[in-house]
Amino acid sequence: MADKKKRKRSKDDEAEELPFKSILESDDVITELLKSYISSSIKAAAGAGGASSSSSKPLTLADLSLSSSCREVADLSLSSVQTEIETVIVQIARSILAGDGFSFSVPSRAASNQLYVPELDRIVLKDKSTLRPFASVSSVRKTTITTRILALIHQLCLRNIHVTKRDLFYTDVKLFQDQTQSDAVLDDVSCMLGCTRSSLNVIAAEKGVVVGRLIFSDNGDMIDCTKMGMGGKAIPPNIDRVGDMQSDAMFILLVEKDAAYMRLAEDRFYNRFPCIIVTAKGQPDVATRLFLRKMKMELKLPVLALVDSDPYGLKILSVYGCGSKNMSYDSANLTTPDIKWLGIRPSDLDKYKIPEQCRLPMTEQDIKTGKDMLEEDFVKKNPGWVEELNLMVKTKQKAEIQALSSFGFQYLSEVYLPLKLQQQDWL
Amino acid sequence: MADKKKRKRSKDDEAEELPFKSILESDDVITELLKSYISSSIKAAAGAGGASSSSSKPLTLADLSLSSSCREVADLSLSSVQTEIETVIVQIARSILAGDGFSFSVPSRAASNQLYVPELDRIVLKDKSTLRPFASVSSVRKTTITTRILALIHQLCLRNIHVTKRDLFYTDVKLFQDQTQSDAVLDDVSCMLGCTRSSLNVIAAEKGVVVGRLIFSDNGDMIDCTKMGMGGKAIPPNIDRVGDMQSDAMFILLVEKDAAYMRLAEDRFYNRFPCIIVTAKGQPDVATRLFLRKMKMELKLPVLALVDSDPYGLKILSVYGCGSKNMSYDSANLTTPDIKWLGIRPSDLDKYKIPEQCRLPMTEQDIKTGKDMLEEDFVKKNPGWVEELNLMVKTKQKAEIQALSSFGFQYLSEVYLPLKLQQQDWL
Repeated sequence: MADKKKRKRSKDDEAEELPFKSILESDDVITELLKSYISSSIKAAAGAGGASSSSSKPLTLADLSLSSSCREVADLSLSSVQTEIETVIVQIARSILAGDGFSFSVPSRAASNQLYVPELDRIVLKDKSTLRPFASVSSVRKTTITTRILALIHQLCLRNIHVTKRDLFYTDVKLFQDQTQSDAVLDDVSCMLGCTRSSLNVIAAEKGVVVGRLIFSDNGDMIDCTKMGMGGKAIPPNIDRVGDMQSDAMFILLVEKDAAYMRLAEDRFYNRFPCIIVTAKGQPDVATRLFLRKMKMELKLPVLALVDSDPYGLKILSVYGCGSKNMSYDSANLTTPDIKWLGIRPSDLDKYKIPEQCRLPMTEQDIKTGKDMLEEDFVKKNPGWVEELNLMVKTKQKAEIQALSSFGFQYLSEVYLPLKLQQQDWL
Repeated sequence: MADKKKRKRSKDDEAEELPFKSILESDDVITELLKSYISSSIKAAAGAGGASSSSSKPLTLADLSLSSSCREVADLSLSSVQTEIETVIVQIARSILAGDGFSFSVPSRAASNQLYVPELDRIVLKDKSTLRPFASVSSVRKTTITTRILALIHQLCLRNIHVTKRDLFYTDVKLFQDQTQSDAVLDDVSCMLGCTRSSLNVIAAEKGVVVGRLIFSDNGDMIDCTKMGMGGKAIPPNIDRVGDMQSDAMFILLVEKDAAYMRLAEDRFYNRFPCIIVTAKGQPDVATRLFLRKMKMELKLPVLALVDSDPYGLKILSVYGCGSKNMSYDSANLTTPDIKWLGIRPSDLDKYKIPEQCRLPMTEQDIKTGKDMLEEDFVKKNPGWVEELNLMVKTKQKAEIQALSSFGFQYLSEVYLPLKLQQQDWL
């Protein structure tokens, strides 16, 4: 008895206190609103055919007549990678026999060779290459490392196994000296051969998890992500063994942090509003970026991002959306177009009355990063984002997703997100 | 044709070069050897009934007549936690009404209050408590925080939801100021109430993954870990929703690092030798420790650990085995008895002819940590470990699991581990 009373009272109290709870429509109404949003955005995309929409034929470098001045890699089969490596080596043998010596032509991955293409909304690599001659004191080491890495990748292709960058490093510590050297050459080799790093069968450690309305195959096993409990399914490190994606979700919810992910997984938010919830637990890793893109492309669902309201939240969004400079040669495969910034946005802090003590003052470094971001093309092309970022830099306040917990642990899943969906409040 | 030739040659080359490949028995022979090991170790355990064996009735503090001088917590149901909190508050109300003021009696978690119990092979907390009075300038803040945390936990019990430590912190940033303060008091509250942190429904971020011959339920969903592809199943953050463990495995392989885990998952090592493969990707987190213990207790399988050959590898082993000082009050629930050190052991470096360039020189800090570990009780009680650690400190060399990649990427799964199993080479 005593129990029941308490429970009831606490629920009533909450309803009164919680900002915006009163204007929340029923789940059915919100679901209908979402449905009409999705069908109208699909129509708009079909009409416009722009790169930043979810149209079925996205723009490519070739469409922009940029393919001669920019370089992009593609997913290649193992046998093609093998053939490419053999071709490079045969060319070099010919060059040596012809008396022209031994050198690789390696695409430059320097900052000066990067280009943001607004039509594609991502960073791409321009076509500058540098020569890496064996007969030069300054490049003999790098040439040797490049040759060794090519030989190792050739082995991986023959055996069809995946290894990590760390494994690669350990096959010849004496030569590589430290892992940054073998890692850098690995990216060079990707560019040289014109294939993605996943095509080389070199994978990164996995961090991401996924849960919700998604069925897919991982290395031949069918995985139903509604039946993964609270822990969720670890995102596979090798995207080439992922396939057969099916879903009845209405959107993909991309979550920056683990804690918010767990709240939504425990509450089975995906059963209330059909969706797929994915997180890389902080900085996006390659496996999660590839997985998100694959979902977006195959399922044609809107991607809504829930990140911290600070410059790094936006930075993370930008890595998912337009790629990182370090791997711009593969931006076509790694980036997910048209990610919407759902929250926590700087304007949400006042709108949702986030208490003063849950906002954090931005450090000087934060403010600098924020101002730098305002100069980035991918921010500039979205006036809504510029406005929000300006507000952040002006108020000098940031907030984590968890700040919503100040209204109760379930405010995120019970009020904030449903209201965002109801109001289609994303940019 | 050309392809085939190449493949064949490279395999032959390998067999000649690879150390120990020639003495490896067939998988069937090794499996039989393992079976007889397991049945004999179960018999031995039943005979001895010691704490460090996998007997069905492990020793407890009560068996050692230590329960009066040591403090341990237990898994409590939500309603019991709720009752405990209410009891504490009623006592305080009485104390205030009786004119004795408002104070908590909080178990001390200082180093001086920790005890290693060799019979249990883990660290436990002694029974010293300190008073935390509200009417004292030095403790008024901590008393207030304690009260607030108790109120929040009470709320979680009523609603039966799980939150992270970060969520907890954000409910009252003004009071807690920074997260270390609310985290520390959370551990105090666990001790005070005599329950585990999981019983409080406060969970840590998940890091671990599991793959192999294990079926279990996560929050009501049945998970078959042989059907989790290469990515594996993320270990659930809340152990109280994990159950129904079934397995036909012969052992549990506890792996320190992600890279080694991925090698074994891709090669489906668990299908060659029936086993369960688990990793926390570095430092063991609470969720993985709870999960490993639960597997060991329910399935009664030997746990074989594959860690780096450095002091931190052994340290990680010790956290799984005997617990961390910070959470010694809960060592009974967090530790897994009788973990075997399979490798990479210092003596393996010479035995397996790990090339000089794949061994790393130990830093001064490494050597200091190694020497400190030699003084730790949990190392001392295992003469084999002492010998290995002495060798490490003497040779001043360390090596990562990945160093085995110098013999080929699959040396770990194809030669090293099978040979270890064949020779039952663990300590």
